[in-house]
Amino acid sequence: MGLALQEARKGLGRTSPNPVVGAVLVNQGEVVGCGYHQKAGGPHAEVHAIMDAGPRARGATLYVTLEPCNHAGRTPPCTEAILCSGIRAVVIGMLDPNPGVTGGGAAYLESQGLRVFSGISEQACRALNYPFIKHSTTGLPWIIMKAGLSLDGKITFRPGQGSPITGPESQQFVHELRNQVDAILIGVETAIIDNPRLTTRLQGSETPSRDPLRVVLDSTLRLPTDQQMITQNSAAETWIFCSENAPEDKARGFEARGVRICRTPAVSDGRLDLTAVLTSLGKNNIVSVLVEGGSRIHGAFYRQQLVDELILLYAPYIVGDIGVPLVDGYSIGSREEARILTEISVDRLGNDIAVRALVRDPATL
Amino acid sequence: MGLALQEARKGLGRTSPNPVVGAVLVNQGEVVGCGYHQKAGGPHAEVHAIMDAGPRARGATLYVTLEPCNHAGRTPPCTEAILCSGIRAVVIGMLDPNPGVTGGGAAYLESQGLRVFSGISEQACRALNYPFIKHSTTGLPWIIMKAGLSLDGKITFRPGQGSPITGPESQQFVHELRNQVDAILIGVETAIIDNPRLTTRLQGSETPSRDPLRVVLDSTLRLPTDQQMITQNSAAETWIFCSENAPEDKARGFEARGVRICRTPAVSDGRLDLTAVLTSLGKNNIVSVLVEGGSRIHGAFYRQQLVDELILLYAPYIVGDIGVPLVDGYSIGSREEARILTEISVDRLGNDIAVRALVRDPATL
Repeated sequence: MGLALQEARKGLGRTSPNPVVGAVLVNQGEVVGCGYHQKAGGPHAEVHAIMDAGPRARGATLYVTLEPCNHAGRTPPCTEAILCSGIRAVVIGMLDPNPGVTGGGAAYLESQGLRVFSGISEQACRALNYPFIKHSTTGLPWIIMKAGLSLDGKITFRPGQGSPITGPESQQFVHELRNQVDAILIGVETAIIDNPRLTTRLQGSETPSRDPLRVVLDSTLRLPTDQQMITQNSAAETWIFCSENAPEDKARGFEARGVRICRTPAVSDGRLDLTAVLTSLGKNNIVSVLVEGGSRIHGAFYRQQLVDELILLYAPYIVGDIGVPLVDGYSIGSREEARILTEISVDRLGNDIAVRALVRDPATL
Repeated sequence: MGLALQEARKGLGRTSPNPVVGAVLVNQGEVVGCGYHQKAGGPHAEVHAIMDAGPRARGATLYVTLEPCNHAGRTPPCTEAILCSGIRAVVIGMLDPNPGVTGGGAAYLESQGLRVFSGISEQACRALNYPFIKHSTTGLPWIIMKAGLSLDGKITFRPGQGSPITGPESQQFVHELRNQVDAILIGVETAIIDNPRLTTRLQGSETPSRDPLRVVLDSTLRLPTDQQMITQNSAAETWIFCSENAPEDKARGFEARGVRICRTPAVSDGRLDLTAVLTSLGKNNIVSVLVEGGSRIHGAFYRQQLVDELILLYAPYIVGDIGVPLVDGYSIGSREEARILTEISVDRLGNDIAVRALVRDPATL
């Protein structure tokens, strides 16, 4: 299953809205086939592994990180491919999370006389597909709140300042993140101050990078239409979420430049209904969103319990009073009100420190 | 020298105002003696190692982390002990930092026909004695700013709240720190809110713990006299620094309870002159001070460039707007104004993350 997990990881960032899946075939103690799901619409991992094994699939045991599908989608059901190949036993990491079909593939294979084991290395298999699991069970995308900040929790040295506080290694890491998510979301304030490109720019990578969808929350359409993210050359689109009564002429100006305008209900004092925004993104098969600030956006997402994962990149500075705080508009008064962080990991990125954590208890996923 | 450094570390927290020093004697490729400086007034590391080696010191090479002293203090000069023992060669980590005597011991030994090498593993030897080096070259103690804080840089969930934000492993680490410093310093605000004991309470340790001197900055003597730190049983004293015109009757009340009152010039709006406070502590052979907050004390120390080392213990929470910031009264507007942090280290302490860094470039020490 470790090998199957390794296979699965090769697909990270390339399979959305599908999960990443890895499969390994073992026959008489020998690995005879490997495969992973490479992109949505393409063959599933099981099929790649069976093709890799050829006739040696007969009598083999299949290790697969996610339950084989039992329904025809863009490809025929994997359960049929498994039966045809002569595989004798199937070891499954995690069952399909979709409420309608979970356990169906495993049950069908068992009914056809195969030995089936499930829940093997389940947590590791789940961890690979948190965004997919959330999206397929709730319809909402997985939300990663990402920020570069000082050791005293400030995201810039002073208000209105756009340059990143973190070092080059952190910047590169952010591009790796962008390369794996379906969308980046920022607030209009940050968009105006930073005039960012929000593209994926990997250095020294052999695999081609992919720009995620760019999403700006801008209730009144204040964003200038000559922003880099709009004028630049990028295969990805820019979507602006605005309120229902944002000026029509500005909307048409954006649309003329290829920007999609998404009108959304506002909840109070002009702020957009974030749940409506995320529901809309989820319906458009956006499975993961990297929220890149600023402070008020982070505060609003955190306050509304919409954040699934935190990625905080600390730069070695103390910024002090004038700096902009990580979250603005979120507050608790005691430990009991604090959200629990789990699966905390810490890494060094040059002089910076990367802290990664899940905000919800993964048991509730 | 690695072994000598190990020896030296055994003395950490027990030798002040002296440095920690380790010594190893090697004769014909064999370690024949080890020793370390155990406490101020006791024999130096070299003497322990020579006694440990006995007659096998003759012809041996001495590895010592700090230059042997060449002057009689509370003990006779080590250079004489080295000459008498028949040692042939001396390998020195770092020279004595005291401006008047640096290099004197090495030169004297060389003049007596011994082979002398210095500057071996010098940085590691210096790192053991940053407080001693600073104190002996400037007269001021080494200042460690320590705080427990949330991931967004808040030291409490709300103003006026005293309970620690960090977990039990961090608390234990703080007691280990206290066990190694000469003094703890806090502001009166924190003293009133927390009513802390400021003692060293090590769990499951075999070596007896030692309480550091307790220092409170309280310009107007607002502190209640029935605070735990004053009424408790502790071998260490409590000193309160107040302004020159703080009420005399309150001062007498404290003195009657065994507290030392140190009247100090105030610089502006009643704030004490921190440099005067530190000069006074340094004159009293306080070589290292752990500054434990609160926000305004941290801000004042950081603003006045008095901090030598940062120890930040992050608890896995986002606290938000109401929380008290790490520093209050310090601000910069750009990266160029930020102080440089070096020798950054990161460790996990249970669910917390410990970040340690030097604030000045160690080359300037």
